[in-house]
Amino acid sequence: MKLNIGIVGFGYWGPNLVRNFSASNQTVVKRVIDFKADRLAIVNQLYPSVLTSSNLSDLYKDSTIDAIVIATPVHTHFDIAKQALMEGKHVLIEKPVTSSFAQAQELLELGAKMNKVVMVDHTFLYTGAINYLQQFIANQHLGSLKYFDSTRINLGLFQHDVNVLWDLAPHDLSILSYIQNEQPISVNATGISQLNNGIENLAYLTLNYQSGFIAHLNCSWTSPVKIRTLLIGGDKKMILYNDLEPTEKIKVYDTGLEVTSDEERNRMLVDYRVGDVFIPKISGKEALAGVVTDFANACLSGTKPVSNIELGAKVVQILEAAQKSIKNSGNEVKL
Amino acid sequence: MKLNIGIVGFGYWGPNLVRNFSASNQTVVKRVIDFKADRLAIVNQLYPSVLTSSNLSDLYKDSTIDAIVIATPVHTHFDIAKQALMEGKHVLIEKPVTSSFAQAQELLELGAKMNKVVMVDHTFLYTGAINYLQQFIANQHLGSLKYFDSTRINLGLFQHDVNVLWDLAPHDLSILSYIQNEQPISVNATGISQLNNGIENLAYLTLNYQSGFIAHLNCSWTSPVKIRTLLIGGDKKMILYNDLEPTEKIKVYDTGLEVTSDEERNRMLVDYRVGDVFIPKISGKEALAGVVTDFANACLSGTKPVSNIELGAKVVQILEAAQKSIKNSGNEVKL
Amino acid sequence: MKLNIGIVGFGYWGPNLVRNFSASNQTVVKRVIDFKADRLAIVNQLYPSVLTSSNLSDLYKDSTIDAIVIATPVHTHFDIAKQALMEGKHVLIEKPVTSSFAQAQELLELGAKMNKVVMVDHTFLYTGAINYLQQFIANQHLGSLKYFDSTRINLGLFQHDVNVLWDLAPHDLSILSYIQNEQPISVNATGISQLNNGIENLAYLTLNYQSGFIAHLNCSWTSPVKIRTLLIGGDKKMILYNDLEPTEKIKVYDTGLEVTSDEERNRMLVDYRVGDVFIPKISGKEALAGVVTDFANACLSGTKPVSNIELGAKVVQILEAAQKSIKNSGNEVKL
Amino acid sequence: MKLNIGIVGFGYWGPNLVRNFSASNQTVVKRVIDFKADRLAIVNQLYPSVLTSSNLSDLYKDSTIDAIVIATPVHTHFDIAKQALMEGKHVLIEKPVTSSFAQAQELLELGAKMNKVVMVDHTFLYTGAINYLQQFIANQHLGSLKYFDSTRINLGLFQHDVNVLWDLAPHDLSILSYIQNEQPISVNATGISQLNNGIENLAYLTLNYQSGFIAHLNCSWTSPVKIRTLLIGGDKKMILYNDLEPTEKIKVYDTGLEVTSDEERNRMLVDYRVGDVFIPKISGKEALAGVVTDFANACLSGTKPVSNIELGAKVVQILEAAQKSIKNSGNEVKL
Repeated sequence: MKLNIGIVGFGYWGPNLVRNFSASNQTVVKRVIDFKADRLAIVNQLYPSVLTSSNLSDLYKDSTIDAIVIATPVHTHFDIAKQALMEGKHVLIEKPVTSSFAQAQELLELGAKMNKVVMVDHTFLYTGAINYLQQFIANQHLGSLKYFDSTRINLGLFQHDVNVLWDLAPHDLSILSYIQNEQPISVNATGISQLNNGIENLAYLTLNYQSGFIAHLNCSWTSPVKIRTLLIGGDKKMILYNDLEPTEKIKVYDTGLEVTSDEERNRMLVDYRVGDVFIPKISGKEALAGVVTDFANACLSGTKPVSNIELGAKVVQILEAAQKSIKNSGNEVKL
Repeated sequence: MKLNIGIVGFGYWGPNLVRNFSASNQTVVKRVIDFKADRLAIVNQLYPSVLTSSNLSDLYKDSTIDAIVIATPVHTHFDIAKQALMEGKHVLIEKPVTSSFAQAQELLELGAKMNKVVMVDHTFLYTGAINYLQQFIANQHLGSLKYFDSTRINLGLFQHDVNVLWDLAPHDLSILSYIQNEQPISVNATGISQLNNGIENLAYLTLNYQSGFIAHLNCSWTSPVKIRTLLIGGDKKMILYNDLEPTEKIKVYDTGLEVTSDEERNRMLVDYRVGDVFIPKISGKEALAGVVTDFANACLSGTKPVSNIELGAKVVQILEAAQKSIKNSGNEVKL
Repeated sequence: MKLNIGIVGFGYWGPNLVRNFSASNQTVVKRVIDFKADRLAIVNQLYPSVLTSSNLSDLYKDSTIDAIVIATPVHTHFDIAKQALMEGKHVLIEKPVTSSFAQAQELLELGAKMNKVVMVDHTFLYTGAINYLQQFIANQHLGSLKYFDSTRINLGLFQHDVNVLWDLAPHDLSILSYIQNEQPISVNATGISQLNNGIENLAYLTLNYQSGFIAHLNCSWTSPVKIRTLLIGGDKKMILYNDLEPTEKIKVYDTGLEVTSDEERNRMLVDYRVGDVFIPKISGKEALAGVVTDFANACLSGTKPVSNIELGAKVVQILEAAQKSIKNSGNEVKL
Repeated sequence: MKLNIGIVGFGYWGPNLVRNFSASNQTVVKRVIDFKADRLAIVNQLYPSVLTSSNLSDLYKDSTIDAIVIATPVHTHFDIAKQALMEGKHVLIEKPVTSSFAQAQELLELGAKMNKVVMVDHTFLYTGAINYLQQFIANQHLGSLKYFDSTRINLGLFQHDVNVLWDLAPHDLSILSYIQNEQPISVNATGISQLNNGIENLAYLTLNYQSGFIAHLNCSWTSPVKIRTLLIGGDKKMILYNDLEPTEKIKVYDTGLEVTSDEERNRMLVDYRVGDVFIPKISGKEALAGVVTDFANACLSGTKPVSNIELGAKVVQILEAAQKSIKNSGNEVKL
């Protein structure tokens, strides 16, 4: 049995979703909804068997449709997803899942109540690089985690409804949530809005943890150079993940802190072990195909997806707290 | 007339000071003081005409000495400099100038009262790259300044008395003070101490400004890769300064924000102008020779040095505030 | 009036040709020929109005077709193009244009006799980077040209019919022919065939010129790293063209030789002027669209295309001579 | 017992030799000879116990001196070394060892006859990176060697007496001789002299081998960018050695050719195994200290040095043949 899919939104990301759901042997794309006729015309040309319309109710009332994929602007996610769940459909929602933590919580609960899958499309979690990272850390190869330091900056499109953290940080926050079991206890964030419209185009976010672990994100739409680097430090090894490297995305440094005691001088001395570097071969499969498989399996077989609503809700919780901190002079906001 | 110099401390940086003060035709190195006999033996071998001893009072009571250069641990700077000023000597002090803002203020006032030069060795301000940057910005080529974003990370020696900000941030804070006339109004800082000894080995510092300008520093002793990059954004152009590039340290991006109004959609649209990139030829002269000349001119001719005590004091003021913010959950500390 | 196009070969490059000829408002794709049914099925799906078949004569006998585009294996180019010209069609041929210089000469003469366009798809000549290079050199900004040094290596597909020079060198040889008016007088080439099948997978080619200018190509299918760099030196400036850089492909070095005479020591001294570096903004337009426009204009208006058959024939002449040199111990082969 | 050393030439490289021979506990520097008084004055100041003069015979007739180190211009090496050997001294000679293969052979034979060490200072052979390379290849980790491809270019000082190959290629040729047991059978070389003085400032050299292995060197004094890369390919693995990388000089690619037979299509198919990359930690010791130790051991204990005269003579033999090929239109010159 195949899963029948309806997709809402055929803008920037929608075409990738239709292509991947069409290519999967677990799913069939039945309907695509968009408010623009010229976008639907493209669907008709490329996928003649797919029904198109601009009316969301066509989706809800089509009883042959099992699941709805939502690729619309963030502020519309909640209403569409809620209605879909009420109509007994599974939902896959673009990131960030909702505009508030309360909405995400409500979807989580509604999904549980209706016994339907609620999944978020944090595509990065399905890349070969992040799969490698997650396994490597889960296997204790880094040792005790100490820090997570991400720089995600470039000349980017200024969004009108959400700030740079809501735009760029979901990638890092979902990765962080995926690889690190400990939950943050608070955040601090600072930033500026060059347009003076209250929407930050450059922001810095720190996540604080009970254990002493720290995570930091540097996000900007106004950097002349594009940088996508993530450093993760453990006490045994450290990792550099550079997403712009075509083939050598991950470098594992066999480098760690070595603390030795020097009693005479009555103080702690620290030295580094500096060793070899290892660049693993990373699978180049398309990440979105993994999203489709994970979603289809969850709907058809009841498995729990990697990019589940709990994870998506945590991402939104942190974004919400970060925004509060920025507006409150960077002061700590508890989670 | 040449300036007679006494130098205190022949450890890591002292040899460079002795070499540069010896090479200048404005200065003569008369005495070197260090507490370790083996360090003095090296001075004796390389500079047979220089007097050496382990006794600071030999410096103070030598009336032929005009100026004292202090290259000792930070916590000793204040006492040595204060005594030297009281004895009527000019002083050049390694960065950071003192352990507290109050001490820096006291040296500033004592220098004024004694009519003696108090200068800080922020060597970076005398490099060709920073000279270029300062001139470029002073000539309004970047336009209105928007952000300053520095990453200064590597596997570094863990200091036992000061945290990573006191160790690495003085470089960026002195540069920032040199190129930007506006003063910060507050700071936020976060960080961790992997050794649990209260001395941060990784820290993030944000400086907030009334105008909306923002500065951010990412400092770490625990990065597996060495990075030394500084991004400075104006509304007309942007600069990338990579100090690890052997010959192409500064890249000027002819790139800026262009705000256009789209009335129909009743919102502001932002676009980028993306243009050519220019890599200026930067002078390769040794920066420390510039420090020596600036100090000698100040002592001999009364000119105001670039790296003056006012600038050095501001650096310490920010470090002190940053430390307070780290210990207070990253909350804002007013300056 | 639009130009009606028939395209032969829908393999690796054919889809790009069909897409660009379909998008042009000067051309209409009428027919696509391929020997494989599954390839034609793709054409039918994507371009329902295009006629498809596996029979070349369908093209030749279709009198509505004005021009034929040939994207088949190299050894088939000559026969298809000759027949097309005989039938009164213009032809655009993939590079390298033919398997021998004699064939290229015959097509050149046949085109002239039939008064039809014969053009070669040296796509690189239509990139923003090469356009910039060509203009820069034509405007004498580099001064007198001294050398052209290309490295074009990676882990590449081993071809079965042509060696690595026939596969990779046409790019550099067409660029060289485009930017440099002087013609080479001879070549030397060396190389190896790791499979011992007489088809070199790694080869070095030198082009010698009367004026003292030299060109050198390093081509390999067996390098673990991918490199695409071209250095061009003049006596006034030098250029580095790195095709793998996403946005900074061309760097202009304001650097040249300065010869000064030191009479006392009775010998020539040479020094360098080392100056600024300039990275121009390069147009990112798709090169193949420029090929289509140039071909359409040539067919419709009689203009001479940049990538004309004379240029394409010279490329093949050098490849032929290089092969001869490799088989003859790298000895010089006159052109 | 320590080896007493006399050093001829205190120009560019001489100071490094004096420093390293002074630091070794196997050797004592007794005399330094140079024709310039100002150079000798520096020796006197830095090394008061070393005797200095401008007279070579002071060296030869000093019976306490066991070995002579020659760091003078290439064309003077032979006469100085020959005389030293005749006087019963061991000799260490800067690279390239002599101006001709015949001279190198004569020194080799004279050393054997006098039972004295004749060694060449090919410093690179004592770096951590080349030691690693040599061991890795000797241990068969690369498999059967296929190619050696070096690029050694930058804006370099134009030499007046030797061309760019004699200046730069000895590094690569000594490395090649060290890691590859097979001897080349012939060479081809091409190049240009921008000054029209017959001394090439840019040259390309191919070494041909019976087995099909090939080596190629790209040497230039006129490149706007500095490149120091060496690719070595085996059928099991490949290596990239980038000498400009501060810490990651060697990358080992677990990548090789895999030949499979596809009988149906009656031809050979080749595919690549693309695997992980490994960056070994390389010892950072000063290479010249290793030269001193190897030379001292050879003189004191009769061991055979790595950089022995046989290896040095082969380097000169190839340089001589390359020069002949350049002057003969790049035609093959047998060895």
